[in-house]
Amino acid sequence: MNSTDLNTIPPTELSELEVILSAAELASGQLRRGDRTTRATYLIAIADALDAAADPLVLLAHHETQLTEVRLRGELNRTTFQLRLFAEAVADARYLDVRIDHADPEWPMGARPDLRRTHIPIGPVAVFAASNFPFAFSVAGGDTASALAAGCPVVVKAHSGHAELSRETAQVVSEALATAGAPPGSFALVFGTAVGRALVQDPRIKAAGFTGSISGGRALFELAQSRPEPIPFFGELGSNNPVFVTQAADTARGAEIAGEFIASFTLGSGQFCTKPGTVLVPLNSRMLATLRKAKLPDGAPMLNERIRSGYVESVRALQAGGAEIINAGPAPYGDIPSPILHLVSAADVLANPSTLLAECFGPSALVIEYDNAGQLGDLALAFEGQLTASIQAENGDDVAELIDTLMVKAGRVLWNQWPTGVSVTYAQQHGGPYPASTSSVSTSVGVAAIGRFVRPVALQGFPQRQLPDELREDSADPVPRLVDGR
Amino acid sequence: MNSTDLNTIPPTELSELEVILSAAELASGQLRRGDRTTRATYLIAIADALDAAADPLVLLAHHETQLTEVRLRGELNRTTFQLRLFAEAVADARYLDVRIDHADPEWPMGARPDLRRTHIPIGPVAVFAASNFPFAFSVAGGDTASALAAGCPVVVKAHSGHAELSRETAQVVSEALATAGAPPGSFALVFGTAVGRALVQDPRIKAAGFTGSISGGRALFELAQSRPEPIPFFGELGSNNPVFVTQAADTARGAEIAGEFIASFTLGSGQFCTKPGTVLVPLNSRMLATLRKAKLPDGAPMLNERIRSGYVESVRALQAGGAEIINAGPAPYGDIPSPILHLVSAADVLANPSTLLAECFGPSALVIEYDNAGQLGDLALAFEGQLTASIQAENGDDVAELIDTLMVKAGRVLWNQWPTGVSVTYAQQHGGPYPASTSSVSTSVGVAAIGRFVRPVALQGFPQRQLPDELREDSADPVPRLVDGR
Repeated sequence: MNSTDLNTIPPTELSELEVILSAAELASGQLRRGDRTTRATYLIAIADALDAAADPLVLLAHHETQLTEVRLRGELNRTTFQLRLFAEAVADARYLDVRIDHADPEWPMGARPDLRRTHIPIGPVAVFAASNFPFAFSVAGGDTASALAAGCPVVVKAHSGHAELSRETAQVVSEALATAGAPPGSFALVFGTAVGRALVQDPRIKAAGFTGSISGGRALFELAQSRPEPIPFFGELGSNNPVFVTQAADTARGAEIAGEFIASFTLGSGQFCTKPGTVLVPLNSRMLATLRKAKLPDGAPMLNERIRSGYVESVRALQAGGAEIINAGPAPYGDIPSPILHLVSAADVLANPSTLLAECFGPSALVIEYDNAGQLGDLALAFEGQLTASIQAENGDDVAELIDTLMVKAGRVLWNQWPTGVSVTYAQQHGGPYPASTSSVSTSVGVAAIGRFVRPVALQGFPQRQLPDELREDSADPVPRLVDGR
Repeated sequence: MNSTDLNTIPPTELSELEVILSAAELASGQLRRGDRTTRATYLIAIADALDAAADPLVLLAHHETQLTEVRLRGELNRTTFQLRLFAEAVADARYLDVRIDHADPEWPMGARPDLRRTHIPIGPVAVFAASNFPFAFSVAGGDTASALAAGCPVVVKAHSGHAELSRETAQVVSEALATAGAPPGSFALVFGTAVGRALVQDPRIKAAGFTGSISGGRALFELAQSRPEPIPFFGELGSNNPVFVTQAADTARGAEIAGEFIASFTLGSGQFCTKPGTVLVPLNSRMLATLRKAKLPDGAPMLNERIRSGYVESVRALQAGGAEIINAGPAPYGDIPSPILHLVSAADVLANPSTLLAECFGPSALVIEYDNAGQLGDLALAFEGQLTASIQAENGDDVAELIDTLMVKAGRVLWNQWPTGVSVTYAQQHGGPYPASTSSVSTSVGVAAIGRFVRPVALQGFPQRQLPDELREDSADPVPRLVDGR
């Protein structure tokens, strides 16, 4: 069914990778020594160029990924907005977390020297693009925007699912950077799995960002950690995004919640890392009754055949684990899979969590019927680390304990909202305990994502003129600073 | 020569470890749900109790480590100061990095939900104590203070070099915590290498701090990364701490710098992770002339026989690599090693950096003679990642490029100062690229060290009364907050 050939572009030669990495290393020093205001203009230049090329890029993306033009235009808009927001963040420089301690002979543990701490770019970054967001988590997506904002050159490993789009996007990015005066080597694109492995192992690469499967991400994570010099590996792998519905919420809004749930898990044919894959409902719920008889939306083409067949396999595994089909469209295992809903009991889940709570990347979801509210804590604990967890509750509900558990399990917890939207904001958190992320202490979406690609450095006893501007007493740069702890 | 038996205390039984970890897991929830102000009092209680027990603890520490009482009293003072400073940091709550984005229907990429981001404790933390700081980097040291401040229970693996002191210190800490009302399980001490390995692999442990050797730290790092759920491993391993002396500095202050260098590399018998192990001087320097003829201080007992014999081996390896002895006390390889100084050329170092720039943990240092200032960049690049790098320079020196390179190589860069003091402050940075640290983006000293043991969580669409206090509109807690990006 899929019109895309996954291997339209040959892998990058290792000799070419060598040239790219040498250039990235050179660019790294130039970007580090350059000023932030200039760097911010590079991000804006990329955003402007992508907007200008929107029509052909969206068309190409649609051809390669089957995603609708409306969705793709929205995604490109998100991508260019993100670049511009990060340009602002580079200028305001909160991400530098500047701290200045003046020398203090009275410091209680002994005389304190003059110490000034800022952050520098970590060095060249490898970015592994995702299949499901050909713009927002790909060539010019969040990881690339974060790394460039931080002052790091980027080498993107293209996803084979949208290779032509990747090449065209990279062309736009490269030209925009060159025109804006960015150092050559600030950005490059490579193709091929073996090249990706070489990339993450190369000593010139100092950090990596990844969005994709648990198996693929784990393999690259392990390569990154087994290097002579291990590097931070920011991988966003898998998530089930459970939704916990209280008895009171079901009584008040069961049918409504059911409808919203269907809309959320079938959005984009279920191909979101934040798709709510599981919903927990009380016994004899209105929600379950509604889900059983609801007319599910039509299926939509999946990104490519590999993803489709993997999805069907994961649905079959769920069924083999005892999940009962409670509703399905006409062709749940077809070329264009219809949405499908399953049911299991709480006891089944607690007995076999690894099978029943595994991620199904596609338009499938699982309903878990719980016997009583006392079970919710144990059920929440049965999940691995999650990107999101959601509660559907009423104001009178006593759910403090459940919220506490969900905060431990997930990076983002939602109240009466749905996880499939991930807004790019200052406070966003996208990443949670493993396997949601290989680095639960960071985020891959939102302004804080820039912090992944900088490293702290303290300068002790420096004369003013040898300090970076943001650390000087008379800095003209209005960077927020913590001075003597205040 | 060493009066200490390294195995005075039997290893912790695995059955006992199980009890400790179950208690830590329980305490984790209680600490997480408890309030910050109460938690701050736990740190102060520990500090007060340690101060009250100073006399017997210092005596025991002296007996086990051979370190002088003056040094040990200073170190204990540093330790209790650190606990009190971290108590203040818990109260002021900057480490929560609170961000509030109000819902905004006009947000350019599409309507923005209400998003509020704070940080929660990461969970139980394993701390691997160091040999060389029996107070400040051991049972109640920086890692323990950071983790408790963050709200995480701590299980310390004692260093065998000061086992009795560890047991006594742990007793003081445990009693202080109990009296202050901390949850049982908030703190425990274990003994034995195998138990340490089990600790870092246990699914209930969510992060680890380590100070010690490259080989030991790397082995534990790899265990932590190969778990089903990998965890952050904050290891401070090895560092050479080079000092770069410019021609102008040598001309102006060569003899003075030489004296200060000798004082710094022989301090505490050279058993500091920040000992300046290498100094780079111009040809025909006053500094080298002074070092050749200087009277080196007497040796002092090393921490234990294992460290002493390892040190002598590393000095022999340096000599086998071609380093020439230019000055030494009477017994550089003796039971109480006298300080020793070596010399090599820049060419030798560039040809064989792995041997000549390896850390020697003890009272040895290496002088590198460089031919011209143009060589300094290449020499700086020949070093692995460092905790510190220092410059001795004059105001007229053009060293911007060298400073830039040293910032890439080290976590802290010093100007005309010596690295062996590591003040506990807001702006301190202790940690650098591998092998200085397994996590170059964090610090193990200073207030920012608390940030290693918290994890970001965003709450979306929450009603006010279900939010943690620091995220509420009407919060009584004066926590610094970034609201709508401002």
